[in-house]
Amino acid sequence: MGIGIRLSQRSELANGQPISDLMSLALNRPDVISLAAGFVDQATLPAESTKTALDALYGDPTAMRAALQYGTTPGYPPLREMLLDDLQKVDGLAESPSVQMERIVCTTGSNQLLHLVSECLIDPGDIVLCAAPTYLVYLGTLANVGARTIGVETDQQGIVPDQLEAEIRRIEKAGELERIKVIYVVTYFDNPGGVTMSADRRRRIVEIAKRWSKRHSIHIIEDSAYRELRYAGQDVPSMHSFDEDGTTVILAGTFSKSYSPGIRVGWGILPEHLVEAVCQLKGNIDFGSPNFSQQLMAKVLELGLYESHIDEVRRGYRPKLAALLQAIESDIAPIDGSNWVAPLGGLYVWLRLPEQLDAGPRGRLFNVAMEEGMFYVPGEYCYPIDGVPVKKNTMRLSFGVQSVDGIRRGIESLKRAMTKVLENQD
Amino acid sequence: MGIGIRLSQRSELANGQPISDLMSLALNRPDVISLAAGFVDQATLPAESTKTALDALYGDPTAMRAALQYGTTPGYPPLREMLLDDLQKVDGLAESPSVQMERIVCTTGSNQLLHLVSECLIDPGDIVLCAAPTYLVYLGTLANVGARTIGVETDQQGIVPDQLEAEIRRIEKAGELERIKVIYVVTYFDNPGGVTMSADRRRRIVEIAKRWSKRHSIHIIEDSAYRELRYAGQDVPSMHSFDEDGTTVILAGTFSKSYSPGIRVGWGILPEHLVEAVCQLKGNIDFGSPNFSQQLMAKVLELGLYESHIDEVRRGYRPKLAALLQAIESDIAPIDGSNWVAPLGGLYVWLRLPEQLDAGPRGRLFNVAMEEGMFYVPGEYCYPIDGVPVKKNTMRLSFGVQSVDGIRRGIESLKRAMTKVLENQD
Repeated sequence: MGIGIRLSQRSELANGQPISDLMSLALNRPDVISLAAGFVDQATLPAESTKTALDALYGDPTAMRAALQYGTTPGYPPLREMLLDDLQKVDGLAESPSVQMERIVCTTGSNQLLHLVSECLIDPGDIVLCAAPTYLVYLGTLANVGARTIGVETDQQGIVPDQLEAEIRRIEKAGELERIKVIYVVTYFDNPGGVTMSADRRRRIVEIAKRWSKRHSIHIIEDSAYRELRYAGQDVPSMHSFDEDGTTVILAGTFSKSYSPGIRVGWGILPEHLVEAVCQLKGNIDFGSPNFSQQLMAKVLELGLYESHIDEVRRGYRPKLAALLQAIESDIAPIDGSNWVAPLGGLYVWLRLPEQLDAGPRGRLFNVAMEEGMFYVPGEYCYPIDGVPVKKNTMRLSFGVQSVDGIRRGIESLKRAMTKVLENQD
Repeated sequence: MGIGIRLSQRSELANGQPISDLMSLALNRPDVISLAAGFVDQATLPAESTKTALDALYGDPTAMRAALQYGTTPGYPPLREMLLDDLQKVDGLAESPSVQMERIVCTTGSNQLLHLVSECLIDPGDIVLCAAPTYLVYLGTLANVGARTIGVETDQQGIVPDQLEAEIRRIEKAGELERIKVIYVVTYFDNPGGVTMSADRRRRIVEIAKRWSKRHSIHIIEDSAYRELRYAGQDVPSMHSFDEDGTTVILAGTFSKSYSPGIRVGWGILPEHLVEAVCQLKGNIDFGSPNFSQQLMAKVLELGLYESHIDEVRRGYRPKLAALLQAIESDIAPIDGSNWVAPLGGLYVWLRLPEQLDAGPRGRLFNVAMEEGMFYVPGEYCYPIDGVPVKKNTMRLSFGVQSVDGIRRGIESLKRAMTKVLENQD
């Protein structure tokens, strides 16, 4: 390193996030079945519909050139209008949009929206309440801005409102209520928990956030990345739809899971009071997300290609989820102390192992599972810093990328690994 | 705003950047000729070559699906390799690449690279030395991370090395040498100055940065956004090519000006010691720039479409620059006290007006010019906080977007406005 290389404090905070280790592991060991990556299934990617949309786009040279030009910082207006219309529709709201187009901002994936909003709201030492476990990449983003993350107990419907309120009360007693800036929730098929929050619970959590916004606002970030990936049951209105005055919930959405992560278009619906700050920051960071991607996605929506692609995506993932649940049922369930919640959508199953099994990256199971031919995301990566203590006997299993056969073989490998480690412990 | 909305300190720092005001001005007054926006010419945008590249891309459904999938955080390897090869070639270096592919990172425009590197290197209160005037959007990015910007005197070749060294010495005497983190330079057709740094001066500035890197590293960010937009004279090797051990210069490049800002692919070549930190931060921010855009640009390069498009871009801008210079010569030169440097490329001419004319956004000239039918970027927006004092009698004129006729009429309007304001002052 030669003479002293001094990185910023921010950069030090960003250090050592686990996701990159897992990704290079996946690249270096292609022989091992990965039930770790949350990637989408290559086979379901919309080559044909994208071709159709592109053909339509450059059938008109003027439109094509407009797509190749700079866009505006908040994003392509027709796309934002269609996104709002669709949201009104799926949330079962009146036809006239209750949300103004100015409140929607397009980003480079929903991750960038999460980052921008966090930058705008959080100072070092501020508190973010979230599920335990929660989305590990966002934990990295939060570490980066110096947030203190506090994990709240979850059940089969996500964060337990009474536990959330108890945690807030505890923080208030410690004189730190005003440090709570954000409650973060993945409301559909949670990553990694797999659970979906009921409508009633959504309403209650919005009510809690508003009630405790005494001298300052507590915002909710609703991450709806997996909403479209439902394989059974009925859709639930967004938490955003329960925020009647529109001042509390920030809704983050994305086409990365439902259409294409390579095109990388996400968006957010913001309370009016955050729009200027987020756009200002975005202007300083990237001067606007790629206009070409946004105009392409607008064309995909306009031509009705999105709806039909989602159907295809669901047809692709439904049997994979079934295969994973069946394999767990037959191979893992017999091992005493294992349990899980069967999700109705998304890309993940959260598995709890017998208490004595450490599934962490330095525990024996992780290495034995590699030897037996599979790997997973250690559950401990998904826990916030404080609050609910880390449960090391947990893992996140993804079923998006592997074939049905790969999933079965992966779970067989996991079973062999668990059996080995348990036997040796006796 | 209801109950207290508390934004982060960062967000407060990002506030009030002038670029968004100028952009909404442009949108609200389409009747006024804008010589302000640094946008590229719509007519030169590569609709045809992009179609050719896309056709090639989705002639192969497997390749197409790979482009629609997630990429890696540092970017698409074949694109990064081609970028390195091309750079070696234009810098006149040996054929075997002296830079490893690992040192190049793709970003969403070069603005994002500037942001990422600044985040990784700069703590609040740290110092960035730059030209006075300099790129106004980056001044916003720097404000955002809490940097103190200090402007250094420039001449017809950019930053004056002796002035740079004098400023560093002054800072050292004040006991703050270790707060200097970055020297920022736009080495080709500076935005807004229009000047290009000579090879000798590039070498000297690298030498200065290395010599003053006593207990910590002073990095140089070389922004080469306009390199390809040369309309006369010979190319100069990058400042990066004078950094023999590769530890000092961060080179930022982009396809936004030379090909398409809508596709929005930029890149950086980093000293090895910064790669991990930048990728880590990028992983937390957006989990990688759009893979589709990168694979599209790789196809454009692979098919030789880029080189031929650059020729077209040059043919498009050359007569516009000539028209602007001619109009200035005939309309502005006769007004005593005006002067400017004729650039050999880029998109900007920096104009100094008679001392008594205040060209600022609240000065009379700006409004009279609007009434007369044109607007410009007030020069005062382009000055760092400290160092060389703001010169209010300056403006940036862009010739990219307007037609030759629009440029002429714009300068006629400016002449009328200047004459009016000067007469009234008497």
